[in-house]
Amino acid sequence: MRAFRITLAYDGSGFFGWQTQPGKRTVQGTVEAVWRQITGEPIRLVASGRTDAGVHALAQVASCNSRTRLSCETLCRALNAELPAEIGVLEVAEAPHGFHALRDARGKRYRYVIQDGRPRDVFSRDYAWYIVQRLDETAMQAAATTLLGRQDFAALQTAGSARVSTVRTITDVDVRRPPDPRYGRLVVEVAADGFLYNMVRNIVGSLVEVGRGKRPPEWLSRVLASGDRRLAGATAPPQGLFLVEVHYD
Amino acid sequence: MRAFRITLAYDGSGFFGWQTQPGKRTVQGTVEAVWRQITGEPIRLVASGRTDAGVHALAQVASCNSRTRLSCETLCRALNAELPAEIGVLEVAEAPHGFHALRDARGKRYRYVIQDGRPRDVFSRDYAWYIVQRLDETAMQAAATTLLGRQDFAALQTAGSARVSTVRTITDVDVRRPPDPRYGRLVVEVAADGFLYNMVRNIVGSLVEVGRGKRPPEWLSRVLASGDRRLAGATAPPQGLFLVEVHYD
Repeated sequence: MRAFRITLAYDGSGFFGWQTQPGKRTVQGTVEAVWRQITGEPIRLVASGRTDAGVHALAQVASCNSRTRLSCETLCRALNAELPAEIGVLEVAEAPHGFHALRDARGKRYRYVIQDGRPRDVFSRDYAWYIVQRLDETAMQAAATTLLGRQDFAALQTAGSARVSTVRTITDVDVRRPPDPRYGRLVVEVAADGFLYNMVRNIVGSLVEVGRGKRPPEWLSRVLASGDRRLAGATAPPQGLFLVEVHYD
Repeated sequence: MRAFRITLAYDGSGFFGWQTQPGKRTVQGTVEAVWRQITGEPIRLVASGRTDAGVHALAQVASCNSRTRLSCETLCRALNAELPAEIGVLEVAEAPHGFHALRDARGKRYRYVIQDGRPRDVFSRDYAWYIVQRLDETAMQAAATTLLGRQDFAALQTAGSARVSTVRTITDVDVRRPPDPRYGRLVVEVAADGFLYNMVRNIVGSLVEVGRGKRPPEWLSRVLASGDRRLAGATAPPQGLFLVEVHYD
């Protein structure tokens, strides 16, 4: 039995998220079916984390075990030839025995894209959250900075997940406005050793409250201290979210 | 009666092109229907040129006459509120009486986006032509330069159009590779006083023959001189093509 590490990009617009669900088109289900078609062998893919419907990945990492004798290079080309154009395999690599993409992940980076102000960019409707009001990125950056470090993020977790601890360490957070001649665009990037359910989308929803001027930047640290999800902003919609990279030892 | 000039962006992926066709979802038909819904008045929109199914526009220009008393600003907001997110109205402006977006156009600029090499970018499948082979942009630029100036472009016109003259003046042509950390990307831009049917897609199809190394750069000027469409490259697919801007006096 060989262990594999597969790095994938996908456009989540047309999928019901990563995880296999009966009767639904999912990324996991699609890749597993194509792998079986190529090798004749059923596999179970484990991702570094599930992504929700509409969420994208620039470099998701998944692991599987397989008895196939095909080379990594051949597997990569065969997968790309058979997969729909919305899923791209960036790399298939041999992994140490027992490699587990979820359990072994040491950290991740997410990007969230907002398009703000008029006019609306017709090309980013599946790839950004559109907000008519122009946001104040300086205030958002000030609020974002208070998220850095090891803290309890219970207030920024959507209920329904059953994680033992809600303490995580955010190692990098950044709000920037890339130069864009025609459209307003804001990019929020967050790196952490791990993320709670909907944590990035709840962070962004709260930062947008600050960017709209409804809350001062220091409000976010009070929300965190409260541990109360109801005090934070609404969950940002899925289509602006991109899993950028996953770190392993 | 007032004359209007409307500047529009659209993602052509979900449309059967610009022009109204019975039973088909088109950009013209969609905008005309929304205008009628807002003003109660049927109009006929004329574009600077028709775009084919799958072709996009960053700033298409259309004209119409209407008796509406709504301000340009109100029309613009109302159109954007009612139109699907794939069509964006950038501007509604009062135009001189008799303004005709097709007849009065003095020039246009098109952009064609190619994604070349591995891996394939899953996010550009509706917005670029994917070519597995890495192309030689220096050879393509050399070939493109031979297109400049006033020439007969009959060899780069798809049959079926009935234009009186096939002579056009290309004022600018450029092949460039924008820095892109993850994916190979080539952008071809062409500006001219007018374009024949499928002219940009036929230019790009021919430039790609050069970029693949199948033809030397100087081949393209021989194709032009021949006036024979069969000697040129295949027509590039629609999804890489963007109408960038239209010039008026």
